[in-house]
Amino acid sequence: MESIDSPPAPRDVLIVGGGIAGLASAVGLSRAGASVTVVEQEPDFHEVGAGLELAPNGTRVLAEWGLLEEMESLGVRPRALVIKDAIDGRVLTRQELGADFERRYGGPYLVAHRSDLLNVLLRAAERAGVTLITNEKIDRVETQHGRALATAASGNVYEAQLVIGADGLGSTLRGVLSDDVPVASGFVAYRGTCRMSEVDIDADLDNVVAFIGPGCHFVQYPIRKDLDQHGQLLNQVAVFQSPAFLRGETEWGLPGEVDAAFATCAEQIRHALGYVPRDRHWLMYDREPIDTWVEGRLLLLGDAAHPMLQYLAQGACQSIEDARVLQATVTDAVFGGSNHDRWIDAAQTFNSIRAPHTARVQRTARQWGESWHVDGIGRTLRNMLFSSRDLSDHHYTDWLYAQV
Amino acid sequence: MESIDSPPAPRDVLIVGGGIAGLASAVGLSRAGASVTVVEQEPDFHEVGAGLELAPNGTRVLAEWGLLEEMESLGVRPRALVIKDAIDGRVLTRQELGADFERRYGGPYLVAHRSDLLNVLLRAAERAGVTLITNEKIDRVETQHGRALATAASGNVYEAQLVIGADGLGSTLRGVLSDDVPVASGFVAYRGTCRMSEVDIDADLDNVVAFIGPGCHFVQYPIRKDLDQHGQLLNQVAVFQSPAFLRGETEWGLPGEVDAAFATCAEQIRHALGYVPRDRHWLMYDREPIDTWVEGRLLLLGDAAHPMLQYLAQGACQSIEDARVLQATVTDAVFGGSNHDRWIDAAQTFNSIRAPHTARVQRTARQWGESWHVDGIGRTLRNMLFSSRDLSDHHYTDWLYAQV
Repeated sequence: MESIDSPPAPRDVLIVGGGIAGLASAVGLSRAGASVTVVEQEPDFHEVGAGLELAPNGTRVLAEWGLLEEMESLGVRPRALVIKDAIDGRVLTRQELGADFERRYGGPYLVAHRSDLLNVLLRAAERAGVTLITNEKIDRVETQHGRALATAASGNVYEAQLVIGADGLGSTLRGVLSDDVPVASGFVAYRGTCRMSEVDIDADLDNVVAFIGPGCHFVQYPIRKDLDQHGQLLNQVAVFQSPAFLRGETEWGLPGEVDAAFATCAEQIRHALGYVPRDRHWLMYDREPIDTWVEGRLLLLGDAAHPMLQYLAQGACQSIEDARVLQATVTDAVFGGSNHDRWIDAAQTFNSIRAPHTARVQRTARQWGESWHVDGIGRTLRNMLFSSRDLSDHHYTDWLYAQV
Repeated sequence: MESIDSPPAPRDVLIVGGGIAGLASAVGLSRAGASVTVVEQEPDFHEVGAGLELAPNGTRVLAEWGLLEEMESLGVRPRALVIKDAIDGRVLTRQELGADFERRYGGPYLVAHRSDLLNVLLRAAERAGVTLITNEKIDRVETQHGRALATAASGNVYEAQLVIGADGLGSTLRGVLSDDVPVASGFVAYRGTCRMSEVDIDADLDNVVAFIGPGCHFVQYPIRKDLDQHGQLLNQVAVFQSPAFLRGETEWGLPGEVDAAFATCAEQIRHALGYVPRDRHWLMYDREPIDTWVEGRLLLLGDAAHPMLQYLAQGACQSIEDARVLQATVTDAVFGGSNHDRWIDAAQTFNSIRAPHTARVQRTARQWGESWHVDGIGRTLRNMLFSSRDLSDHHYTDWLYAQV
């Protein structure tokens, strides 16, 4: 990657944002034959946070791009997704992730460190000849004379056939298309990893386990195998509804709220909670779905287009799906025929394919999260529903994981 | 029935309260061989309200007592219990009440006018030689020298082996055993009947239909067949959570709240609601279960012992079950052996058989009602749970309807 001092040469596509969505798009577009530049405002390409889940709709694409083997070597294949009640610890339902699951959905389910996925994509982009620029913040994108012009805070102007806004939840470029703002869920996440050899947590290292409780949940899964002979790395995520948020306060989700939020949970959870760092936390936001992601030669994707709550663990996967679908529409519209200037068609086709689906993922993620956090009779009904689920029933996952 | 001017002759059993529980007990105890007097504080024996449901656990007992044929001639056998969502009108689940159901539970499911059941029991009590006294309010029951003495407001003192407190939700006699008070649910019922020939309601006359909605529900079923050639009598019950109750006001559930409570319901319900009389309403109360119903020679049963919310439609049935079980324990303990003074044993055995079961019915009725009235994600979960119910699964009804 490089910093630049002089205005860069024009590329087919300029991607604004070097997170998972931006880098995955760089990989996909390179494979479509496009020349790509990625600009990132930070001094380097990195991911904050701890673990991340990759369902088959993401790993299928990694496999096609030749990246799955590397990703698998860094991550873990859990045996099952297990949902337990956080108060009594009872198993409510599980999704086996073995051979039948992989056959059905055409890829494995992996869990990994967020930075490992980012680095796999970054190396793939480098190998594909993507120009990677850091310390460059794009403030403005305009479409003039059939070209997109992106102006950076540095004064540099980038020229491209298409600019992709992959600048995340707080996207600057989304402002061109919508005046909506992120929606606070009132839930906050504390997360972190610990080496199993250094803690006395009685965690299930075979599975992704989500303990779901009234106004809170707690997730545990291993994300690295036998790391440095020090045993496995356990990822833990503690999420709860902030009482300060409910009181309408502007400062919410602070560390003083953590222990009380899990006070009614099983002892196992309260003990493990002691190992979750309190020095950082993430306020959980999403946005309302919007239909239109294209304005002139600007296209939004990833969290900039469809930020979602984390409950379906689909943030990374939907960004990777975006990249794969954009690869296909660009291949068809731009490089497939005689007309070499059909970038807008490609972006609009991409928009029409992806927006209805990601809107459903955004809405379902909210509802799925709500169902995790119910109390009283809602909890009773939820537990009865989940417990009575036929484990061979795939209608909860087919729409999300199956081949598009 | 008679009013009395002089102290009555001693009987084996004095029953305080001439509602369904009191009269059913009079029938059951007569069949056990006991001499019985029933005293009612009102000028006559009557039931207020409209329709009533009789599940097999009630009709089985009526059949054994030779009363089912008469009851059936007055009531209706619905084909099914149907639960629909009150907002979109969608069927959520149903319980067929046909031959399989009757075979499984040993009796039919009937719906009838409350007064018809009361009159059937009253006539049976008369035929059995039960002494029926009205206008007599019992204030006090004491156990002295191995006899129960019940003192009326009139000054009359009744002497018996056993006094049964069947004086309902607001029981005076329960005060001997517990200082608890009725628990307001915050829900109020408006109910009434109309002749189908006189209204333009598009009701399903084959079934008992419960439309369940956020904070409200609406029930419809036919209770008399081709009455006077004027078509069927339709029973309607509208129940809702009172906003005034939630605000902590002492006057709640007033008619001004009715229409707003059903504003989000399907048009079909809002139209039918127009035919529900507003001149009377019933505030819905129950009580916490208590373990002990026996004090000396006083025994509570029916609503005095275990008042329940109406959601399982088991008020009458549980009182009839009480009567049948008491008939059995009195037969065994009192008239079965050589010792003719084992009334307290019979009462205590009855208590130990019935209290755990009716406590479960009380608790389940509350929870069942809660599940009807959920909104938001709770409604989504409830509808998914109900809709996914296997119609041949009997675990929701076996514990309640099956032979004890």
